[in-house]
Formats: sequence, structure tokens, C-alpha cells
Amino acid sequence: MSRKSAKAKSSVQSRKADSGDDTDITALALAETKLTPAMEAYFDKCIEKLGFVPNVLKAYAFDMPKLEAFVAMYNDLMLGPSGLSKLEREMIAVAVSSQNRCYYCLVAHGAAVRGVSDDPVLGELMVMNYRAARLDPRQRAMLDFAVKLTSEPWAVEEDDRKALRDVGFSDRDIWDIAAVAGFFNMSNRIASATDMRPNSIYHGQNRA
Amino acid sequence: MSRKSAKAKSSVQSRKADSGDDTDITALALAETKLTPAMEAYFDKCIEKLGFVPNVLKAYAFDMPKLEAFVAMYNDLMLGPSGLSKLEREMIAVAVSSQNRCYYCLVAHGAAVRGVSDDPVLGELMVMNYRAARLDPRQRAMLDFAVKLTSEPWAVEEDDRKALRDVGFSDRDIWDIAAVAGFFNMSNRIASATDMRPNSIYHGQNRA
Amino acid sequence: MSRKSAKAKSSVQSRKADSGDDTDITALALAETKLTPAMEAYFDKCIEKLGFVPNVLKAYAFDMPKLEAFVAMYNDLMLGPSGLSKLEREMIAVAVSSQNRCYYCLVAHGAAVRGVSDDPVLGELMVMNYRAARLDPRQRAMLDFAVKLTSEPWAVEEDDRKALRDVGFSDRDIWDIAAVAGFFNMSNRIASATDMRPNSIYHGQNRA
Amino acid sequence: MSRKSAKAKSSVQSRKADSGDDTDITALALAETKLTPAMEAYFDKCIEKLGFVPNVLKAYAFDMPKLEAFVAMYNDLMLGPSGLSKLEREMIAVAVSSQNRCYYCLVAHGAAVRGVSDDPVLGELMVMNYRAARLDPRQRAMLDFAVKLTSEPWAVEEDDRKALRDVGFSDRDIWDIAAVAGFFNMSNRIASATDMRPNSIYHGQNRA
Amino acid sequence: MSRKSAKAKSSVQSRKADSGDDTDITALALAETKLTPAMEAYFDKCIEKLGFVPNVLKAYAFDMPKLEAFVAMYNDLMLGPSGLSKLEREMIAVAVSSQNRCYYCLVAHGAAVRGVSDDPVLGELMVMNYRAARLDPRQRAMLDFAVKLTSEPWAVEEDDRKALRDVGFSDRDIWDIAAVAGFFNMSNRIASATDMRPNSIYHGQNRA
Amino acid sequence: MSRKSAKAKSSVQSRKADSGDDTDITALALAETKLTPAMEAYFDKCIEKLGFVPNVLKAYAFDMPKLEAFVAMYNDLMLGPSGLSKLEREMIAVAVSSQNRCYYCLVAHGAAVRGVSDDPVLGELMVMNYRAARLDPRQRAMLDFAVKLTSEPWAVEEDDRKALRDVGFSDRDIWDIAAVAGFFNMSNRIASATDMRPNSIYHGQNRA
Repeated sequence: MSRKSAKAKSSVQSRKADSGDDTDITALALAETKLTPAMEAYFDKCIEKLGFVPNVLKAYAFDMPKLEAFVAMYNDLMLGPSGLSKLEREMIAVAVSSQNRCYYCLVAHGAAVRGVSDDPVLGELMVMNYRAARLDPRQRAMLDFAVKLTSEPWAVEEDDRKALRDVGFSDRDIWDIAAVAGFFNMSNRIASATDMRPNSIYHGQNRA
Repeated sequence: MSRKSAKAKSSVQSRKADSGDDTDITALALAETKLTPAMEAYFDKCIEKLGFVPNVLKAYAFDMPKLEAFVAMYNDLMLGPSGLSKLEREMIAVAVSSQNRCYYCLVAHGAAVRGVSDDPVLGELMVMNYRAARLDPRQRAMLDFAVKLTSEPWAVEEDDRKALRDVGFSDRDIWDIAAVAGFFNMSNRIASATDMRPNSIYHGQNRA
Repeated sequence: MSRKSAKAKSSVQSRKADSGDDTDITALALAETKLTPAMEAYFDKCIEKLGFVPNVLKAYAFDMPKLEAFVAMYNDLMLGPSGLSKLEREMIAVAVSSQNRCYYCLVAHGAAVRGVSDDPVLGELMVMNYRAARLDPRQRAMLDFAVKLTSEPWAVEEDDRKALRDVGFSDRDIWDIAAVAGFFNMSNRIASATDMRPNSIYHGQNRA
Repeated sequence: MSRKSAKAKSSVQSRKADSGDDTDITALALAETKLTPAMEAYFDKCIEKLGFVPNVLKAYAFDMPKLEAFVAMYNDLMLGPSGLSKLEREMIAVAVSSQNRCYYCLVAHGAAVRGVSDDPVLGELMVMNYRAARLDPRQRAMLDFAVKLTSEPWAVEEDDRKALRDVGFSDRDIWDIAAVAGFFNMSNRIASATDMRPNSIYHGQNRA
Repeated sequence: MSRKSAKAKSSVQSRKADSGDDTDITALALAETKLTPAMEAYFDKCIEKLGFVPNVLKAYAFDMPKLEAFVAMYNDLMLGPSGLSKLEREMIAVAVSSQNRCYYCLVAHGAAVRGVSDDPVLGELMVMNYRAARLDPRQRAMLDFAVKLTSEPWAVEEDDRKALRDVGFSDRDIWDIAAVAGFFNMSNRIASATDMRPNSIYHGQNRA
Repeated sequence: MSRKSAKAKSSVQSRKADSGDDTDITALALAETKLTPAMEAYFDKCIEKLGFVPNVLKAYAFDMPKLEAFVAMYNDLMLGPSGLSKLEREMIAVAVSSQNRCYYCLVAHGAAVRGVSDDPVLGELMVMNYRAARLDPRQRAMLDFAVKLTSEPWAVEEDDRKALRDVGFSDRDIWDIAAVAGFFNMSNRIASATDMRPNSIYHGQNRA
């Protein structure tokens, strides 16, 4: 499917919304530049796998070094080898984005939690209040750490790392929890600073 | 449709979720008492109109005076005559519940915003961050007032009321905005205090 | 005593104050409507028992369904059967109102704590900082729960309910603590939103 | 009147309270040392003028240099020459102490506001929420500055000083507002750190 | 060294800075008055020992009773007999000033921590985040108490005092911790309110 | 200079400190892996230009994809083409890190501000309270945006972007301000989560 038809598809989905999600991706007027071959291939892969190019990538597409650095870091963190499952990384993404009330990331990664877990309710719980979810102690400790790191990073200390080790996380896992939480603390702010709008197609995904 | 079959229907919807939304309505062991005729009729009407009895009503059903007072106040505020549309009242409900991160109210009234507005995205925006919604100045002022009243009620003063009057709200409208915001500041806390769980059927409503 | 003479009496008490407590009950121009017979009887009962009609009732008297719903809920919560004493319910009212810095409720319910307890200092402690009061563990746990529910409702969880059960509260008691705390989180906000002023007669009550 | 009879008098006033205000002045076991002649004379003057020695002075009386420094600073700030009236200085004291929820200072200086102003309601307003008081622009600006300086001193800047100058305060007045607000930010913390209890006689003062 | 030559020296040090630290000591136009003999002697002693008169003293020099009260309290607290070492008192000063983000006090007392401890890194840690310093349990408890007393004085209770006693602090030590923390909560606010600027010579002191 | 001799040099500088800054770079036991040729070259370039390898790079060196992604993003943001000067980017880094009280980033980037600006006082101001610095309106607006984006990203809206445009920033500049602020919101959290320690050599750099 071409990028153009992907856009058409998502427009239909958002017919009723005046959110402008698909028309004005950010509040900044930054012209898309020519994609490098690597990024051209990456965008094509997005369309092939997702049916569309996530708007965050289009937002970064005004500058290739920035887009490439973002993609490299994102893919390593969210899809690379880790003791955290892909679902756990998405859960961190959403719990952090909820703390920061980031519309873009809550929509895009809320859909991911719903999709990866095949549990639509879990996605809603991460968006609304992760404390209300009935999680096992490992995942609860993971999210408590990520959210404390988000809201008062200055107060994270050895006791907090110990709480992670006590439920079985390794030192490498602790790094990964911190790195995913850190990454979304960055992305949430770039999205909020630029009024970044998610592809409206996310809203209806994985609801049933 | 009987209450029993309504429950069956919602169970199917939440098959994948281990949220327990439909089995344990609150964390408190409070036996349902016999419904008064008025409340029996009201529950039947819920089933007729919604297909189910909202869990908050079941949660209150251990004591008829409490249930009746809650129903009377709720119906007057949310459905009675007002200069605010029903959608506007639901928008206040969700924006306040987002500030308080109340799972029950975000699920139930998020569905209501999606349904009343026929705009699924608007529901998500109210849940996630009302500031990201592209609202007209009247609705924006209304939600700014409701959310400030939620987060720092001690600082609401004449300037805040003036901001409402400046976009056309009457004194009666200001009362209604305050009363709806106040009501959900109450309900959010009762729900959080008791770990109240929404009917899982809400999650899938009005998504398309 | 008629409502008119009650007003005269309270005017004398507030002679020195330019607070306007008794002249402008709220900042909203909402004309009193005709009381229903039930509310007429209720106002008369207030004058008989208290010597005056609390201003909050006059503030709601522009609309009978709203007044009646408020009165029904208030009387059930504060005066109805409960495992909490009337003093304990008033203590919650004041501790919550202190957190929200609500002038109306602190004045009216501070007077109630002084009166019900026959301990003027206890009323001041609830207004100023309940943590400074030398309470038994049961009442301290009750107020800790109510104030946490006020300031960060999203973080109230099973451990908080356990702390109440550990000092002897039943599940029904927990509901009542939450419901009273919730009710004043509503009332505080309606009072602040409308600049509601207490009857000035409260200030001097139960001081000796 | 001797210190002994002053104590007897205040004991009667607090008969019903189990606040221990007059028996355990602080939570710290610090033996009173022998008063210097200057402090002996000062305590006698307190008894002569007030009928009692304020507990804060007894709390400092374990060490004469500390007591003398406190008394010197207090008397200069609160009673010395200033463009601020004594009432205005007491209003700052109470508004700051309300922000910090300091039981000792709210009781002692709330009584002072009631007494100096001959307006019991004004004292309650300063304790509960100074924003609800109907103040002239000068006094409102003064308290806004003092409370902002209390809650977020890092954000006080030239615009805040300008707001004081705009209502007529001189640079010397600005110093005095800051110094009184600063002093109570110190005293509030020493009182809270030591669980300092006010003389219970304050509670009933200047109520009529 | 005369005051004039001390000024010359510090001017050289701050050549590159446009901070105006040495030219405009505060944002208030308050003329220095004639020093009393005691204060004249004290300023001379500062020049003899430090090489300069700290700007805070010049800021107070518009009024001798204020200057003398400040000096008396400061010297008693920071230099008088105490179970706390002078370094510990300076550590409290800086940790409190960091919480309040007070430029003047962080510069002046950060230099003092560096100097008294002969450990430049310790000074930086107190300025930046005392929790990152590798302190013994006694000093950590001391700073935890001082910082909690700064950020939420209303919540300091017996458990907090017990934590100090548990690491060996006496009741007198607890007073001194509270008094030093309280004093800097005052000074931080006077400095912020007046935009007080430190002597620029502090910046380079004790860095090696 | 070899990495070994660089380490020896910095050890001397930190002789008096027991901060362990140079011995335990993080609280996590993550073994350094073999550097890729590109990273080997990059580390060598650090030693050549700085005299040492910044500890953050060593902390990431357990995993080459993570190190390479971090280096690519860092170098693009902080050293790549931008309408913001390198000093301005470092000022954002420090102001954000001050808000988050991140020891590592304050030390490393505080040194950078001192070095790039040749103004040691400016570095201290960014660490302590950027509001106290006497900045031109452009830089002040830039830091106000970055710090608001750090502390309450959900509240950044069009008015905030307008404030940047009003002092001359382009849309691309706004992206860069957001991206640098976002990046340090990530890095601050990874540093705090892992107790990352700066090279102690930074402390003494660019002080004179």
C-alpha cells in the first residue's frame, strides 16, 4: 500500500473528528526534506507493516540526521534485545505518557498496548491510571519505578533499584526500564512542545 | 433485556481482560440490599436504555437512601435543564476525572462523550489532555474553570468567573459548571477509595 | 424565631466585619425561587434548631430539585446511621475543607466540631492542621485516609483501606469515610466557585 | 499578675481540651535555664501586658543567646517602625502560617489579628484563605507577595516587586513585607519541628 | 585590608561576569546608614578574616537594629556552641537553599561548605542534590529532616524526630537542625524577595 | 594522552572527595563490551579534545547500539547546525537539569556553560536558578519555555510557542529548544535512575 492510500484510509476513520490529527501534524511549519534511502526504506516498511507512517516520523522528516537518530534509538529501545518484553516496554511508554499527559504518545502507544497484549482494557488502564490495573508484583514495581522517575527523578535512589531487584529484575533490566522511561520523557515533551497529532487511525485499533 | 442477560453480554466483551471489572465491583464487601420500588424501576430503565446497570449504581445498592440521593443528584445535574448541553456536562465529567485519574469515571464518561458527540477522538482528548483538543473559546473556558476548580479550588476567584461570563456563560451556567465539576470531584474519590470497576462493556462503545 | 429575626441577630454579631457574609451569600445572581412545602418545613426546622438557615441552603434555593438533592444527601451522610460518630463525620468535613482551604465549610463545620465535641481547641486543630491534634490511632487513620483521598485520590489503594481495617473500621465505615470526604470535596468546590459566604453567626459559636 | 496565676487562668480556659497546649510546650526535653535580667524583665512585661508569657518564649528559654536574638528580631519586625501597620504585619504572619499550616503561629497570631483589627472575622479569613477576604488592593498585593514568597520563593522577581510598588509600597516597605514573611517561614518551621503548642488562652481571645 | 581594596579585589575576579553581583546588591534602593560602633567593628572583622564584607550584611545596613538582630542570630546559630559541627550547619544551609533555589545563599554557603570541608565536590553535591552525596546515616538523616521541614513543614511529626534520635541526635541537636533550617528558610526568602546578589569572590573560592 | 593517563589526572583532582565519581560510574553492574571501531575512534577523540572520556559514554559502553544511538543524537543536538548557539544549547541543558536536580548533568554541563561562555558566574546561575541571571529577553524566553516544558509539559500550548516567536525564534529554533530540553529530560532520568557519577575533573574546570 502506498503512503497516499494509507492516508486516505485513515481520513475515513477520522471523518467525524475535527481533531486535525491527520492534516496538521505539528504546530511548526517545517518542510519535509528528501528522505535518505535508508529512511525511504523505513517509511515503506512502516506502510507495509502498519498500513501508514506514524506521524512522529513525518514530524522529524524535516531533517535527516534527527530522523535517523530518533529511529535508531527508538528501534533499539522498543524492539531490540531486552529482558523486558515488548509489551512491558509499551506499558512503560504509556504509564510515563499518562504522567506527562501527552496526547500523541497516549494515542499511539495506548494502541500498541492494546494490540500487543490483545487486552483492550489493559491499554485503557495504562492511559488512565496504572495503579488501578491488577498487575503482578514484577510489572507493578516496574511501573512504579518508571513513574517515580518521571515525576520526581531527583528522589530515585538505591531503595528504588532494590525494589526492582527484589522482584527479579537484573541490572541490565533496570537500565532498560530507565532508558524507556527516559525516552518517553523526551518524546512526550517534543510532542507537547510542537502540538504533535497522532494518526487518527490509532483510535480505533485493537478495541474489540 | 434482563439484568442477567446484560451481564452475559458484557462478559463476552471483556473475555480477554483480567481486569475483573464485572465480577468485583468494589474492594468493599457490602451486600446489596433489596431495591425500593423506585430503584427497581430505575435499574430496569437502565437495562432497557443502556443494556446494563452501571456498576456505580450496584455499588451504592447496599443502602437505599444513599442510592436514591446519588441518583437524584446525578440525574438532576447531568440530565436536568441547564444552559450546558449534555455533551458539555460529560466533557466536564471527563476532564475532571482525568485530573483526578479516576479509572471508573474515565471509562464510563469517556464512553458517554464518544457517544453523545459521535466523535470518538473527542472522548480520547478529554481523557488524555483536554488542552490538546481544538475547542471553541466557550468550551475551553468551561474546562479551564472546571479543572482549576479541581486542582486548586482555593485559588478560584472573581477573575475566573469573569472569564466564563466573557464567553457568554450566565450565572446559572457558572453554577452548573461548578456543580458538575464538584460532583465528579466527589464521585472520583468514592470510586478511588473503593476501587470501583466500570462495566467492561463501556470500553468498546462508540469507538467507530 | 422567624428567619427575619435570625438574620437580625447574626447581623449584630458581625457588626465589625466587612466580610459581607450575611448580605451577599454568593457571587452569583441567582434569584431564590419559591420553596416547596418540604423545603419550607426544613428551613423552619433549621431556624427552630439553629436559630438561622445556613447560607448554603439559601444558595441552593434558586432551584428546588438541586436543593432537595443536596439536603437529602447531606442529611443521610452527616446525620444518618453510620459506624462513624457525628463528631467524626464533622472532623472529616473540616480536615478535608482545610486541605481545600474552603472558607465557607471551615467556618460552618469548624463551629460544628467545636459544638459537638464541646472542645473548642479540637475545632481549631481540624481547621489549622489535623496532624497537630493528639488523636487516637483510629481517628488519625480516618483523617489520614480522608486527606490523602482529597489531595491525591489516584494513589489511594488497598494498603490505605488496610490501614483503616487495622484500626477497626468495617467496610461500611470505609464507605462512609470516603463518602463524607467525597461530599466535602464537592461542597468545597461549589463554595469556592461561587464565593459562598457563611452565616457570620458561626464565628462566635462554641468558643468558650 | 504573676506567671503562676497567669498559668492558672489559662488552664481554666482549656479545661475541656486534651491538646496539652499548656503542659508540654514542645516535644523536645530542653530544660529552662536561668533568665538573664533583660529576659526576666521581658517576661514580666509580657505578664503585665498579656497576662501570660507566650509559649514560644518559654520554648526558647533553654538558651539565653537564642532567646535574646529571637526577641530582638521579633520586636524589631513586628513592633518597630515600619510603613506597614501592626495589623498588616500580623496579617502577613497569619497568611504565611496558613500556607505552612503551622498550628502554633495560626493560634497565636490569629488571635493578634482579631485583637488588633477588632474584627474577629478577619482573623478567621487570614487563617482559612486570605483570598476569600475582601481586602483593598494594597493589602491584597501585600499578601499575594508574602504567600508567593512562601510557596515558591525561587519565582519571585521584578514583576512581583513592581506589583507592590504599583499599589504604593516603598522599597523599605517591600523589605519589611519580605522580612516579616521570611521571619514566619522560619518560626513556622521551628514550631512544626518541635511540635510547639500555643498558650490555650489564645483560642478564646477577641472572639466577640 | 580596607573595605575599598576588598571591593577592588572582588571586581577583578568577576571581570567577565555581567551578573552585577558586586555593584547592585539588591533590587531595592535602601541607603546605607551609619554603622554603629559594634557593627563597624564587625565589618572590619569580616574584612580582616574574609577579605570582604558579605553582601547580605551590606543589604541589612540600611537599618542598624535589623542588622544587629540578624548578626546576633546568625552568629549564634552558625558559630555558637552546638552538637552540630560548623560543617554540618553549613550543609543544612546549602541543602535548604537548594530546595528554595536561592542564588545568594547557594553561592555564599556553597563556598563555605567547600572551604570548611576542604572537599569541593561536597559543596557541589549540597547545591545540586544532597541525595546524591555519599553521606553517613547521621548526616543523611539530618538533611532529610531539614529538607522535609523546608518543603512540607506541616507534615513533620514525631516519626521525623525519632529518625534523628535513632542516629544519635539529642533533643538539643534537633532544635539546632530546625533552627538552622528555619533560619535559611527566612534568609532565602529575603534574598529572593530583594534579588540579593552575592559577592562574586565566592564563586572561585575553595575550588581546587 | 591515553585513557589511562587521563584517569590518573582526574584522580588527582578529586583526591579529597569521597564522592567515588571516578571509580563507580553507575550503581549498575554492567560490563563494558568491546568498542566498535567508530566508538573507539570517538573515545580517542574525546581524550584528545577533552583529556578524558565523559563518564556517560562509559556508562553506555555495555552495549554498542545504545552507545551509538546516544552519541548520534547527542552530537546532532548539541553540536550540529542550529539557530541556537552552542552556549544556548548548554544553557538549556543546565536549566533543565536544575529543574530535575540531576547531579551528573549539572556537573558536566555546568562546566560546559562556564567554558563556552568564559563566564563562570553564568554557569552557577544556570545550576542554581536561571531566573536570577540577567539574561536578554530572547534567552530568558528560551529558558522559560524549556523549564515549563520540563515541569508541566501538558500545559505547553500555542501561547508558549508565540512567546518564542515574539523574541525572534523561528519554528526550527522552537523544535531545537524542545529537542534539547527533551533530550536532557531523558538523560537526567537515566543518570538519576543509575546514580551516574560525573568525571570529577569537571568540578574545577573553567572556574577562574
